[in-house]
Amino acid sequence: MAEKKKIIECVPNFSEGRDTEVMEKIVEAFRGREGVKFLDYQSDKDHNRMVVTVVGEPEPLKEVVTAAVGKAVELIDLRKHEGQHPRMGAVDVIPFIPIRNVDMVEAIELSKEVAGRISDAFGLPVFLYEESATAPHRKNLASIRKGQFEGMAEKMTQPEWRPDFGPETIHASAGATAIGARMPLVAFNINLDTPKLEIADAIARKVRYLSGGLRYCKAIGVDLKDRGIVQVSMNMTDFTKTALYRSFEMVKMEARRYGVNVVGSEIIGLVPMAALVDCAEYYLGIEDFSPDQVLESRLME
Amino acid sequence: MAEKKKIIECVPNFSEGRDTEVMEKIVEAFRGREGVKFLDYQSDKDHNRMVVTVVGEPEPLKEVVTAAVGKAVELIDLRKHEGQHPRMGAVDVIPFIPIRNVDMVEAIELSKEVAGRISDAFGLPVFLYEESATAPHRKNLASIRKGQFEGMAEKMTQPEWRPDFGPETIHASAGATAIGARMPLVAFNINLDTPKLEIADAIARKVRYLSGGLRYCKAIGVDLKDRGIVQVSMNMTDFTKTALYRSFEMVKMEARRYGVNVVGSEIIGLVPMAALVDCAEYYLGIEDFSPDQVLESRLME
Repeated sequence: MAEKKKIIECVPNFSEGRDTEVMEKIVEAFRGREGVKFLDYQSDKDHNRMVVTVVGEPEPLKEVVTAAVGKAVELIDLRKHEGQHPRMGAVDVIPFIPIRNVDMVEAIELSKEVAGRISDAFGLPVFLYEESATAPHRKNLASIRKGQFEGMAEKMTQPEWRPDFGPETIHASAGATAIGARMPLVAFNINLDTPKLEIADAIARKVRYLSGGLRYCKAIGVDLKDRGIVQVSMNMTDFTKTALYRSFEMVKMEARRYGVNVVGSEIIGLVPMAALVDCAEYYLGIEDFSPDQVLESRLME
Repeated sequence: MAEKKKIIECVPNFSEGRDTEVMEKIVEAFRGREGVKFLDYQSDKDHNRMVVTVVGEPEPLKEVVTAAVGKAVELIDLRKHEGQHPRMGAVDVIPFIPIRNVDMVEAIELSKEVAGRISDAFGLPVFLYEESATAPHRKNLASIRKGQFEGMAEKMTQPEWRPDFGPETIHASAGATAIGARMPLVAFNINLDTPKLEIADAIARKVRYLSGGLRYCKAIGVDLKDRGIVQVSMNMTDFTKTALYRSFEMVKMEARRYGVNVVGSEIIGLVPMAALVDCAEYYLGIEDFSPDQVLESRLME
């Protein structure tokens, strides 16, 4: 049997969200390359940041990401950068996400290869984070980035904040970059028929990992003022282990004690097919279903 | 711009679900042919039937299907066949389904070509059905197949049941075959915690179009002897109009009056992604979901 096509997603964050010309030049690196599909980019002027979504086979994906990093290092000067979003580098963070026929081990390997390449080619210090992290205190991106561009040179003199790849101090204009592998993230929000934010907050606390809830669920209460209702806004950080339907049913169950009802939900941005198929399997009680039974998944091989 | 590759799906049903050697020899015909992808086969001992799914470009697809029919005519003897599923031929039915860059007109044309080929090559009488049918009373496969293998020779003496291709009576060992073009079909079975076949039959009559139920639902009761339970076995003939979850909930609702429960379900063979995503949307109450949000659907563009 032929080897199945491997697909990895990459969502690099660049510290430029205002200069269209610069953004276009960086995005250009992702286009027109066999084996790579440029899916989306979103920029924000307040954050002064651009988030690109691209998927592809490992080899060509490595190449386009490296080329885009080169462009960003050439065109973005962090010494002149200001914006609302915390950042430490021209290319602030590069997560690699296993999508099809790739496991986490391979995604980690790929993240390290790219880290090696971009530190060699552009003199960038690189921190490995999330599943690629080389120590527990370096898993969380916010911990690595704390101090931001302006504080990184100083921070990197501490032994526990030496970079994993590249020079021991920041790149003068491009700072430092975090690279790592993580599972796909699903932004899943559940709406409640009450205007009381404290109810959404209370339910969020029950369902999220941080305060005793589901292992791969982050959650906060959000006020949907326009609609006069509130929402439990969740980031599902590993839907293969904490299923969407499980958090949905748990929110429903907790809502009962407040006499409120779940009136709908929303998924923001992209969602892997498997996350939804899993829910269909659960609610229809489908026995022995294989993802290979989905026609489209077979056509992609 | 280059002409887009045409893809047609074909799901031939063979009347052998027990003898592994025979099944393997038939399946072999679908393998290793340029321009054709052998996707799946599933067999069922109770039904004594095998369902193959293959997709490909029209020309090579015609060839592999013809070769597989030849094998089945050689190896399957309907005179010795028994099983729960109604059948009239060694190759019981061959539907062609337009998938990509092919319209229904082309799929109908292709079905007629294959009907001509296999009747010439193997002396099989062929009935055109579904969108390829040559008269309204011949659209429904169940109407054509009524009487089954044992009754077909007699039935075919009636002018309105003359075959569209081939000899005017059945092939002695291989019976008759139905060939046609149709929309994608989902084989969706729902299990009940009772051994009473009459209950599955009664529910099937309520849920299916034929006797007053859902427009794009065909259903029969099936005895799962190995498990000591019964099943409402459904063919969903247009899931975009009659959703899977709707038939599922209707079976659950009807089961209640008999004091039995739905204990699971199964999907046989392939299912279009949209059929399952639709169920996830329903049960999770997802608002304003777009199929473009499914990561994999973007990969196929």
